[in-house]
This record gives sequence, C-alpha cells and structure tokens, in this order.
Amino acid sequence: MVKHEDSIKGIPLIKPTTLLPSLPAAYYLDPNILEREYAAIWRTQWQYLMRLDTLKEPGAFKVFRIGDREIFIVLNEDREYRGFYNVCRHRGSVLCEADSGQFSSNIICPYHQWSYGLDGALIKMPRIDVVNAIEDLNLLPVALTTWGGNLYVNLDSKTSLSLESMMIPGPNVLDNWPLERLAVGHRTTFTLACNWKVFWENYLECYHCPAIHPELSQIVPLYQAGLSTANLDPDHPAEDRVAAHIESWTTTGRAIAPVFSTLTAAEQVVGHTFVEIYPNQYLVAHADYVRQVSLQPRSVTSTQVTAEWLFDPDFLSDPDADLSPAIEFGARVLDQDTRVCELNQRGLAASGRFQGHLTHLEQDLADFHDIYRNWMQINT
Amino acid sequence: MVKHEDSIKGIPLIKPTTLLPSLPAAYYLDPNILEREYAAIWRTQWQYLMRLDTLKEPGAFKVFRIGDREIFIVLNEDREYRGFYNVCRHRGSVLCEADSGQFSSNIICPYHQWSYGLDGALIKMPRIDVVNAIEDLNLLPVALTTWGGNLYVNLDSKTSLSLESMMIPGPNVLDNWPLERLAVGHRTTFTLACNWKVFWENYLECYHCPAIHPELSQIVPLYQAGLSTANLDPDHPAEDRVAAHIESWTTTGRAIAPVFSTLTAAEQVVGHTFVEIYPNQYLVAHADYVRQVSLQPRSVTSTQVTAEWLFDPDFLSDPDADLSPAIEFGARVLDQDTRVCELNQRGLAASGRFQGHLTHLEQDLADFHDIYRNWMQINT
Amino acid sequence: MVKHEDSIKGIPLIKPTTLLPSLPAAYYLDPNILEREYAAIWRTQWQYLMRLDTLKEPGAFKVFRIGDREIFIVLNEDREYRGFYNVCRHRGSVLCEADSGQFSSNIICPYHQWSYGLDGALIKMPRIDVVNAIEDLNLLPVALTTWGGNLYVNLDSKTSLSLESMMIPGPNVLDNWPLERLAVGHRTTFTLACNWKVFWENYLECYHCPAIHPELSQIVPLYQAGLSTANLDPDHPAEDRVAAHIESWTTTGRAIAPVFSTLTAAEQVVGHTFVEIYPNQYLVAHADYVRQVSLQPRSVTSTQVTAEWLFDPDFLSDPDADLSPAIEFGARVLDQDTRVCELNQRGLAASGRFQGHLTHLEQDLADFHDIYRNWMQINT
Repeated sequence: MVKHEDSIKGIPLIKPTTLLPSLPAAYYLDPNILEREYAAIWRTQWQYLMRLDTLKEPGAFKVFRIGDREIFIVLNEDREYRGFYNVCRHRGSVLCEADSGQFSSNIICPYHQWSYGLDGALIKMPRIDVVNAIEDLNLLPVALTTWGGNLYVNLDSKTSLSLESMMIPGPNVLDNWPLERLAVGHRTTFTLACNWKVFWENYLECYHCPAIHPELSQIVPLYQAGLSTANLDPDHPAEDRVAAHIESWTTTGRAIAPVFSTLTAAEQVVGHTFVEIYPNQYLVAHADYVRQVSLQPRSVTSTQVTAEWLFDPDFLSDPDADLSPAIEFGARVLDQDTRVCELNQRGLAASGRFQGHLTHLEQDLADFHDIYRNWMQINT
Repeated sequence: MVKHEDSIKGIPLIKPTTLLPSLPAAYYLDPNILEREYAAIWRTQWQYLMRLDTLKEPGAFKVFRIGDREIFIVLNEDREYRGFYNVCRHRGSVLCEADSGQFSSNIICPYHQWSYGLDGALIKMPRIDVVNAIEDLNLLPVALTTWGGNLYVNLDSKTSLSLESMMIPGPNVLDNWPLERLAVGHRTTFTLACNWKVFWENYLECYHCPAIHPELSQIVPLYQAGLSTANLDPDHPAEDRVAAHIESWTTTGRAIAPVFSTLTAAEQVVGHTFVEIYPNQYLVAHADYVRQVSLQPRSVTSTQVTAEWLFDPDFLSDPDADLSPAIEFGARVLDQDTRVCELNQRGLAASGRFQGHLTHLEQDLADFHDIYRNWMQINT
Repeated sequence: MVKHEDSIKGIPLIKPTTLLPSLPAAYYLDPNILEREYAAIWRTQWQYLMRLDTLKEPGAFKVFRIGDREIFIVLNEDREYRGFYNVCRHRGSVLCEADSGQFSSNIICPYHQWSYGLDGALIKMPRIDVVNAIEDLNLLPVALTTWGGNLYVNLDSKTSLSLESMMIPGPNVLDNWPLERLAVGHRTTFTLACNWKVFWENYLECYHCPAIHPELSQIVPLYQAGLSTANLDPDHPAEDRVAAHIESWTTTGRAIAPVFSTLTAAEQVVGHTFVEIYPNQYLVAHADYVRQVSLQPRSVTSTQVTAEWLFDPDFLSDPDADLSPAIEFGARVLDQDTRVCELNQRGLAASGRFQGHLTHLEQDLADFHDIYRNWMQINT
C-alpha cells in the first residue's frame, strides 16, 4: 500500500470515508430538467432583484427576467414597491418596453393604452366603460419582500415562504452590518457557460482554492488548506478567519473603507461572514464592505451572474475613495471561478451517463444537493 | 361608480359587454403548435407567391419557402406556370440551386443530371433507359391558381378549395380595380420577431390606431376613433372612409398617380378597400394604387412579410413618377405595426399560462380566431 | 416509345431494373435519429483519430470529439497510447483544458488537482487518503487499436469488434503500401452543411462524376462513364483504372513523389485503391501518395471532415518537394462534392415525407444503407 504525499505542504491527509454521489450529468445538460427547475424552484423561491434605493420616484420602473418569466417593479404613489408580470391583460403586450424608465402617472400599455394604477388595478380601457368590465383584469402580481436594503421577488404571489427561513446559516448573522444603509459602489454582470448549479457547487467548497485562487488562499489560511469551513476537518489547526495581518478581502489585504463601527471585534477578526439564500444569492460581508452575488439561469448551460460591491455612502461620496483594491480582488476570484465552472460544465457532457462524487470537503455542496433534491422531489 | 373619461377627445365610450378569450399564449410560443399549423394550414391553404409578370420566358424559375417546405415555380413552353417541390425524385437534391434563374430547356438536376420536362415529367436518367422505369418519378407537383394578376400556390396538389371562397369579404370587392394590369412599383421584405398570428391580429383591429398610427388616424377619422370598421359602434358618426380632403393613403393625402378610371365615385370617396385571404395575404386598394402584403412563418416567433405597391404600368413608365409619398406612408405604418407586434410577442412569453381578452372593437380578430380554431380543430 | 440519347457521348444506356429505396428524409433531418445513431453506431464502431506519430513524448495529449462525446489520447511512460473520456471522476471537470498539450507527469485535473497516472489509475486526491477510497475512481477508458500507422478509437471499451473486419473490401488491399511509414504532408478540416450519410452516399457512387468532377473524370475513364467500379456495367469497356497516360491523382496527372517501390505493376497501373471503414474513414491509395478522409457528425445537418495527404517522409524532407498538384487536385474534388452534398441535404428538407431511389449505378450506396439499417435495426 503506497501512501501518497499531499501536494499541499505540511497539511495532513484527512481520514477517508464513503464518497457521496453528486447529481447525474443530465441535471446539468437536459433542457427538460431546466423546465422542471423553473416550475419547482424559480417560480416558488425568493430571488434578489435590486437595492431598494434603485428607484426614486413614483412611477419609476425596472424590468427583470426571472427564470423564464419577465416582470417589472414599480414605485407607487407612496414610494412602495409593487411588482407585476410584464404583460397587459388585454392581448399580452409588454407594459414596459424599455428595461427601465418612468411612467408619467399610470401604467399605460404601449399597444392599446389600457391604463393600470401603480398598484396594478385596471383603471381605463379606451372606448370601453371599465366600470362594467365583468372580469378581473388587474395586473398579475408577484410577491415582494425586503431585507438588508435589498428587494426580493417571489413569482408565487401567494407564497407563504419567508425569505428569512431560507437564509443559511440564518437571518441574523449579518445583524451587525448596516446593510440597509449601504450603497452600490460597483456592479458587474456577466454570463458563464455553465449550469447555475455548477456555479453554486463551486462557491460551496474551497477544495479548489489552493490551485485556483492563490491570492484568496494567501489571505485565508483555511482556504490554503482546501477547507471552506473549520468544521470540515477538526484536526486541522486553521480557524475560519483571515490571516493575522489581513483586514479585508482586497488586493492589498488592507481595508479600503472605514471598518463598520457596529461590528464586534470577533466579526472584524474573522474578516468574512457568509449568507446564502438559495437559489439565487449569496452575501460576503467584510469589515469595510459587503459583496453580494446573484444569479439567474439563462439556459441549461448558461447562467447570468451579477456581483455588487456595497459600501457606506459616506465613503462613496469621498472624492478620494479608491474602490479598486476590493473590486479587483473580487473580480479576479470570479474570473478564476468562471474558468473552472466552465471546465466542469464541459466535462459533464464528455461521457454520457456520468455521475460525480463528493468528498468530506464538499459537505456544504452535499447539503445544497439535498435541498435541491427536496425541491425537485428526486432521489438521484 | 366612477366614470372615466376617454383619452380620445369627444368620442363616447361604447357599452361594455362580455370579453372574448384570445388564444392561449402557447399558440404563439410553442414550436410544436407551429408544426401542427404547418400541417393544418400552411399545407392546405392557398398562398400568394408573386405577380404573374415576374417570369417572362419558358424555363425561367423562382424558388419559394412555403411553411416548412421549399418549392419552385417555372414557366413551361406555353408560358404557363407550373410548380413543384424543389427536390429531385432520385436522391433528393434541390433542382434549383439559385433562388431564381433560367433552365436552358429541361429541368436538370445539378447532382446527377436527371432531366424533367417543364411540366415535371421525368424524361432522362443518364445511363438508364427511362422508358422502362417502373415507378412514377415525375416531379412532385403543387397546385397553382391565379387571381388579379397574382399567382397562388396550394401545397395540396389535389385541393378542391377555391381561392375565391377564402376571400374576405368576398372575391368581387376589387372588381373595379384593374388588378391584372398593375405592376410592382416597389417591394420590401422584412422579418418581424413575432408569431404570424400576432401580425394578423394587429392588422385586424384599429383599436391601436390612435396611439400607434397618428398619420394614418389623421387620414381616416374612423381609425382616430379606434374603430376598424363602421359597424363596430353604430352610434359612432364616423363613416368607413378617408377624410373629406383626402384622396389616397400617402404622406400628403393626395393621390400620386391617376385615379383608376374604372372605380365608382363611392369607391373613390371611401379611399381604401380591403380583401383578406387567410393565412397569408391582404390587399388594400386605393384610388391610385394597390398595396398587397403577404407573410410566411419562419419560426414560431418570427414571420417574414413582403409588401408590394402596385401601380398602373403607364404611370410607372413616366420618368417623373414619384412613388415615395405612397411608399413612405405604407412603410411607416408597417414600421409602427412591427414595433407593437414585437411588444405583443414579448409580453406573451412573460407570464406563462397567459390568455388575453378581446373587446367589441376586435370583432374581426375574434372572427379570425374562429377560422383558426376551425382549421386547427381546437376549442381553446 | 421514345428512346432518349444519353448526354455522355458514345456510352450506351444500361438496362433498367427495379429501383431500390433510399432512406426516408427524416434520417437526414431529425435530431432524434442522430441521437439513435450516436448510440447505435458512433459509440460502438471504430473511428480514426490521428497518425501514430502525432504525439512524441510521455504525457503528450490530444482531445477529440467523437459523436456527442469528448475523449483524450495520451502517451504513457512506455510511449503507448491510452485513451479516456475527458472527464474527472470527482465532479466532472474536463482533464484536458486545451485541445492538445503535455502533462508534466500525471494527468492532473485542473479543478481540484485529482491526479491520475498516464494509464488512468487514480493516484492522488489532495487532502484525502486515496488508498482507502472505496470506489473505483480510475479514468473511464476507451478502446484503442492501430492499423497502417493510424490510431483508432472505439468508445465501447469492451468491444469485441475487430477494426479489420470492418474494412471494405478487406484489410489486405493496401498491404503493398508502406502505410506505417508515411507522414502527413497536408491536412485540411472543414464542415459541410449536410448529414454525415449524405457525404458517404456521395463518395460511394460516380454517377455524379461526369457533371460534377470534370478533372477527375478525365483522369479515370470509368468515372467519365458514371461508373464507380467496373462491375456495375459488365458491358462497358472501361476498366477500373486511371487512363493510360495518367500516373496519379494530381492536377498534372503525373506522380509528384517517387512511386512506392513495393507496389505491383498492376497496382501502379490501376492508380487508385480504395478502402472504406464505416462509419468514419476511407483511404485512397495512389502510386505516390495516400489520401485518407475521416468524418464526424456535428449535428444532424452538419458534418466535420478531415482530409490528410500522406507521403513518404524522405520525399517530405526534400526541400524541393512540391505537394500542391496532389493537394489541389484532392481539395478541388472535395469542394465539388461539398457543393452537391449540400444541395442534396437542402432538397431532402423540401417536401416532407420524401424517400429517394437508388439505381444500378449506386449499388455500393445500397450496400452502405444495408449496413446502416442493420446497425440501426430498421427496415425503412
């Protein structure tokens, strides 16, 4: 029995156990599976849309493509958000032609000028007395909720699901961050050539970190050991925190903005606090800024990702503020992940009925698969 | 009970009634529905191809894509049109490589040189004595008919359907126009990002006219009232005719060519006379020219449209003839319709199981849907 | 009864017989048929990959797309070829990111650095003791074999099929050519807009040659008569050989390289000797060079073709060697075939339920169809 040396200097091998099955390759390749996911997941779960300060005035609107649907969000007269499918109840024209804009007062269909109030009630059909219209022709609503300065949508307008119940590890871990107050300092949107679950799987483990993310692994010793969380290997000495001399996830390792004053000393020392909200968002909160990443499937083999860097607005209004150490660091990590996600997607199509294996080090990924299997009501 | 003012100045609201259901969204989005339409409609109904004067000499040919099929039309030795599928009976090569051209005498397959007469009979297989060929290997014919100087095809070569029976309101309404004599002064072909039925639905009502077609609505007071025909609202004073000072559908409102001398005074005053030939053509006859528009589905979400402006050939041969007021006017209306057709198509995909509603003002559209439902043998 | 003259001067018509049915058009158009072909043919049959001298050093690799699968070939420490699906057994990343390259020693997955030996055995999982891994996680192998200096793959790693048994007319007809010794003087890869069977069908008959390949038909009198082999028409005087004054298939008709000294006088006189290895390769051996052509379906309506011109390496190392008469001649024939293959594909889609006919002159094509029907277990 040959005992092989690990390539990561000085880190002992963990004891081997049973490998868990990953999902069959068809779950990453078959358009029919994506159709089932749209129904079982993307039309039942909460999804991040945008920051609450995106729209300012009553009648301002913004269009979003959620799964295979299209909706718009509008501010009503009380500056409250309302969301509707982007479709006129008459013959089905979109109501919002541009991706964002401003209704003068009512929501007026560009085709036949049916008018709806900003709360979605049909208030005028040209040439027809709307009072006697016998069917309910109000706009088709979607459910909205807010958290941490973010707006979320659920296509199931009657959902009883709470956003907070879906937060992992829980809704309170970011309580000391002034999320509502933060503003977007930078936003990037890009499309990866991979299934949306491949992107999540990559996020959920750090087994790939030593080879793929050398800069990140320098900042977080645990990642250099291939561990995403400390409890994956109790024998391993590294704690789940940035290295002693590191303040934040930046190219310099230094914080670029004032440290949030409401953080505990422990939260500052840890340097990164994560929240996942399946299926479409995770947040990484640092001492001086927060990065939040959201995604939407665009096809079974492509995924659109948006990353936002959130800062204190006072810092952003400082003309000398330099966001680039944080933006470049995060963008580099995303670029590195994009490469391996696309390699993973390509290989899943190489051999037909493939099914991969998960190790101890990918327990969070196995947990994600369990949630996914439950949503999809499958056992594979 | 609040009574809403209509945005169209001075036009009373018509009395409301039951709304009729439009077609379910899948009928505009599902490729399988288009396959069924190809079989039930596009391979059973007459369809416009081209003007009879397009080809001049025996052996001249032109290729057309009808639904999901490809045919060609050729002039035989008697200068009569014949039409065949563009496929050699041997191994299936196309016979016409270019979209138009001239056979020297016979129709010769470019692959193995099987030769067919201009009436489709196989007359030579190189190296094989065709006399004893035991199967019927003549070209696969399509049915052709003519009307008003137009050539029409029916892919069902044994159809018993008459073209005239499909004309709405009937085959005689254009009897006073010298259709056979007219020539194409301008032709444009473009593709819309919408299902072919969306294009028809838009054509079949003028409820959208006041907002979408301001120039056209100025010319036709009835359209300014959102009415496509006078009988939609008996209380409305407007007649189905151009305004008193208008002669034709042009940017100036003036006729640009001599008024057809065979028209009645009433036909001149009305200013526009319509004929629809479902599923692929309509004609609009004015006092000085005729515009005819034909269409073909290219996918479930795209439609190719060709518009032709027909004039008296004597006028066209006049070096001072200026067609632009008629062409610009019609092209502008088509551009306006293209925009809203594409908005309608996009919205039909926004919310899943959508089904729109038809008002009183869209009775022609409801009638079209009834014809469509009958063709497709559906009740939805 | 009219007796038609054949256009080919002086060649009598052969006696007509029953025509055989070709394959129904759906076999050239339906993506579901291609899926069935992948399983029944492309995953069960031997297929040409590359010349054995392509890779030189242990660890050198090259990636291939075979049907709808992706594999790579690697040289092991003994400079023997091994082939595997391009997928890591862990979570399915490709192992080879580039289409060709060099592993430093082991095959290391670019994602999580799992390492495999050059014979495919898993030898290291970072952070995990591979010795106790309870499942077989070696690479998924494919079968390889060699012939004539060529490397062939069979995706069925346990195939009992011999490559030689699939050679038509047989494995020995090229025994006198020094195939192992030859080297690639020129290679071209291109994609045709046709089903892969259309390309084979075109290759398998010369009924099209007089009209499509005038240069080739000048070199081979039999082809000028529309005959691919002499036995198709016993009454025809032409032998299956190049014309008396012709040495090789080149633009000049002269050999451009020394005639292979091991050929018999008869083999030199014939000027071309063919071997087919369905479904993906044929070879044409001339007195001074060998051309081999291989193909892969890329979709039901597109086929990737690679042609290689093989020469004696001594000739290739001669600085005055001019390959162009052979390359230009072959490339011209392939261009001519590409045109008619694409015309054939287009016509197959023109008329719906089309089924073509095969003549006496296409007996090899009928034989190919029989092999195909047997593979697919169909009778149509």
